[in-house]
Amino acid sequence: MQNFVFQNRTKIIFGKNTEYQIGAETAQYGKRALLHYGRGSIKKSGLYSRIVDSLKKEGIEVVELGGVVPNPRLSLVREGIELCRKEDIEIILAVGGGSVIDSAKAIAVGAKTDRDIWDYYTRKAEVEDALPVGTALTLPAAGSESSTGSVITNDENNHKSDCGSELLRPVFSILNPELTFTLPPFQTACGATDMLAHVMERYFTQEPDIELSDNMSEGVMRTIIRNAPIALAKPNDYASRAEIMWAGTIAHNDLLGRGRVEEWTSHFIEHELSGQYDVAHGAGLAVVFPAWMQYVYKTYLPRFVRFAIKVWNVDYHPGNPEKTALEGIQCLKNWLKSINMPINLNELGVPDNRYQLMADGAVRYGNIGHFKPLTSKDIVKIFQLME
Amino acid sequence: MQNFVFQNRTKIIFGKNTEYQIGAETAQYGKRALLHYGRGSIKKSGLYSRIVDSLKKEGIEVVELGGVVPNPRLSLVREGIELCRKEDIEIILAVGGGSVIDSAKAIAVGAKTDRDIWDYYTRKAEVEDALPVGTALTLPAAGSESSTGSVITNDENNHKSDCGSELLRPVFSILNPELTFTLPPFQTACGATDMLAHVMERYFTQEPDIELSDNMSEGVMRTIIRNAPIALAKPNDYASRAEIMWAGTIAHNDLLGRGRVEEWTSHFIEHELSGQYDVAHGAGLAVVFPAWMQYVYKTYLPRFVRFAIKVWNVDYHPGNPEKTALEGIQCLKNWLKSINMPINLNELGVPDNRYQLMADGAVRYGNIGHFKPLTSKDIVKIFQLME
Repeated sequence: MQNFVFQNRTKIIFGKNTEYQIGAETAQYGKRALLHYGRGSIKKSGLYSRIVDSLKKEGIEVVELGGVVPNPRLSLVREGIELCRKEDIEIILAVGGGSVIDSAKAIAVGAKTDRDIWDYYTRKAEVEDALPVGTALTLPAAGSESSTGSVITNDENNHKSDCGSELLRPVFSILNPELTFTLPPFQTACGATDMLAHVMERYFTQEPDIELSDNMSEGVMRTIIRNAPIALAKPNDYASRAEIMWAGTIAHNDLLGRGRVEEWTSHFIEHELSGQYDVAHGAGLAVVFPAWMQYVYKTYLPRFVRFAIKVWNVDYHPGNPEKTALEGIQCLKNWLKSINMPINLNELGVPDNRYQLMADGAVRYGNIGHFKPLTSKDIVKIFQLME
Repeated sequence: MQNFVFQNRTKIIFGKNTEYQIGAETAQYGKRALLHYGRGSIKKSGLYSRIVDSLKKEGIEVVELGGVVPNPRLSLVREGIELCRKEDIEIILAVGGGSVIDSAKAIAVGAKTDRDIWDYYTRKAEVEDALPVGTALTLPAAGSESSTGSVITNDENNHKSDCGSELLRPVFSILNPELTFTLPPFQTACGATDMLAHVMERYFTQEPDIELSDNMSEGVMRTIIRNAPIALAKPNDYASRAEIMWAGTIAHNDLLGRGRVEEWTSHFIEHELSGQYDVAHGAGLAVVFPAWMQYVYKTYLPRFVRFAIKVWNVDYHPGNPEKTALEGIQCLKNWLKSINMPINLNELGVPDNRYQLMADGAVRYGNIGHFKPLTSKDIVKIFQLME
C-alpha cells in the first residue's frame, strides 16, 4: 500500500425531500447565491421552485445563470465569473448533474482570481482560492458532488480538459434519489457507466497489497451492476435509485483510490472523443474502456483475473487464466449492451476517423498510462479496437 | 435506505514515516499544544522524540500530560482540562491508541466550557465547542482517530460512558502502520476484534435495501478476518499491518452505517463489563458479541444467513437456513479463538457474577437494542450465554 492522504470535506445530505434543506445549508456561507443550472428541466420538474422557495425563506438573494450543456462550455463559465463579480456572489449553487457542477466549480475558481480561468485547466496555474459550491444533484454519474475535479470544454478549440483541487470539493451536496425517477433511460445508463468507470480507473493498478480498497471497490461495482438494470426497468424504484446515487458518490470521492496508483487513461482518451464529437461522456466510456482493457490486459493478467472472478463471478480456469480474464472483459461488454450503451465507435455515432488527432491530444502533457504506459501510437491502436 | 447525513472532516495521513509531518499539521491550528499520551511506551519506541522534534521545528510550545490508562479515567481528564486553561493550549495532540484519543477529546470539550465535563458523558449537556484534536495512532482498534465518539470511565463510580459530536472528530490523524509492529499480540488481537465489532454493530440491522453498505462492510470484515492472523504470525509485515490500520479507521468513520439503523447493543453491554472489571475492551467484545448473536439471531434470520455466506463463506443450506446462520456465528467464535481472544467470561477473567448490576447499568437511559429491543432481564440472559 502506498502512502496517502485522504480528506473529504463535503457534507452529503441524502434522501427523500432533502432539497428543502438547501436554504438552511446555503445560509451558512452567505446571503448572495448564484443559482446555476442546465436547460430548464428543473423548472419543468418543479425542483426549481422548491429550491428558490427554500432559499428565499432564509433571506438569500438569488442571481441566476442557466444554460449549462453536457460537456460544459468555457464561454458560459466566463459569463458566470463576470456575474459573480458584478453581483458580489458568496456561494454558487449547482442544481443539476455533473456538467452543471463542473461549470459551477470553474466559475467558483474564476471569481476569486485575476488570471484567465482556462490557465487552471491547462496546467498553467494552481487553484489557491475558490467560492464555496453547494449542489443539489439530479443525475448520478460524474461524482462531481464530492470530488476535487471539474472538466470544461473550450468551445474555441474543442479542447476538453480538467482541473483538480481540494478547494473544488462542494461544501455540501443534496442527493434525493426521487429526483432521478424522471431521468431518460439513456442518461441513467450513461451515469451508471460513468460511475463504474470511476471505480475501474482506480481498480486497474499493478500496486500489490491493497486488499481493503479492492474489497470495497468490488462491492461498489457489484452494486452498480446489479442496480442499474433494475432502475432502467422500474424508473420509480427508490431502492435501486438510492443505491446508484450513493454508489456514484462513493465511486469518485477518492476513498477507493487511496494507497493505489490510479489509472485514468480511459478518461483521458474519452475526453478527446467527447471534445471532438460532443458525445455523452458515459457512452464514450462504454466504448473506450473495454478497448483499453483489451489492449493492456496481458501486462498484468492477475488483476484482470481477479476482476473477472470477484466482480463478474466468472469461474477461474486453472489451465487458462487468460480465458478467465477475457471472460471478465466480455461480461462488462455484455452488461453495457444490456443497458443499451454503445460498445463501438459506429454505435456511438462517430462519423469519421480522427484517431491521430485525438491520440496526439491525449498525450499533449506527456505519455499517459500507469497500468501500461502508452504513447500516441498505442492510443491509435486502442481507437482501432473500438471499431 | 434511510435518509442520512454524512460528513467526516478528519484528514488521514497514512503510511511510512508520516509522524514527521505532525509539526507542520499542528502549526495550522496554533502554537501551543498539549501532548497527551499513555504510560511511556512512546518514549521507549523513540516515537516521542520524533514527535517533539517535529513540533519544535515548527516553533510549537509543548505542554505534556502522560499517564492515560486503558479505559481512560475521568480524573486525568479533569487534570488535562485544568492544564489547558492554565497554559492557554490551542490544540491537543493524542499520541497513542483509542484510550489516549478518547481522553484527549474529553479534555478538548472540557477546556471550552464552564460546565462539569461529566455532564457531557451523562446526557446532561451537548457539545457546543471543543479544542481541535490531532492524533498519531499507535494501536488500530477503536477508530477514535476519525470518529465522533469518546468513552471515559468515571473512576469514582466505575461508570463507563460515551459522548459523541461532530466536533470531536480529530482535525488530522497520522497513521503509520510501522508503529504497530511492536504491539503485543494480545493488543493486536483486541484491536482486530474491536474494529470487526464496529462493522458488525452497523451490519446487524433489519433495514432493507442497503446493498452498497452491505457490500462494503462485508469487504472490510473479510479484510480484517484475513489479515489479523497474518499480522500476529508476522508482526513486522507491513502489508497486513497497513490493511488492519486502514480497516480500523473505515470501520468507525461512519461511512458504513449511513442509511441503516445501527445497533451498538454489544458495545453498551461491554462498557458495563469493562467498567466493572477493567477488562480490555476488545477482549470484552469477543465474549459479548457472539452471546448477543446467539440471543437475537432468530429475530431476523436472513441477516445472519447473509453474514454466514458473505463474510465466512458458509454454504447455504436450502432446507435449514438456521443451520447456515449458526455456522456463521460459530465461524466468528472459531476465528476469535484462533487469535487467542477469550470467548467466555471465565476466559476473560471475570471473577464473579454481577449480571444484574451490569444489566441495570446497560439500560440506565432506557431499554437498548434495535435488531431486537432488550430489557434488563434479556441482558442478564445474554450474560448467562457468556458462561
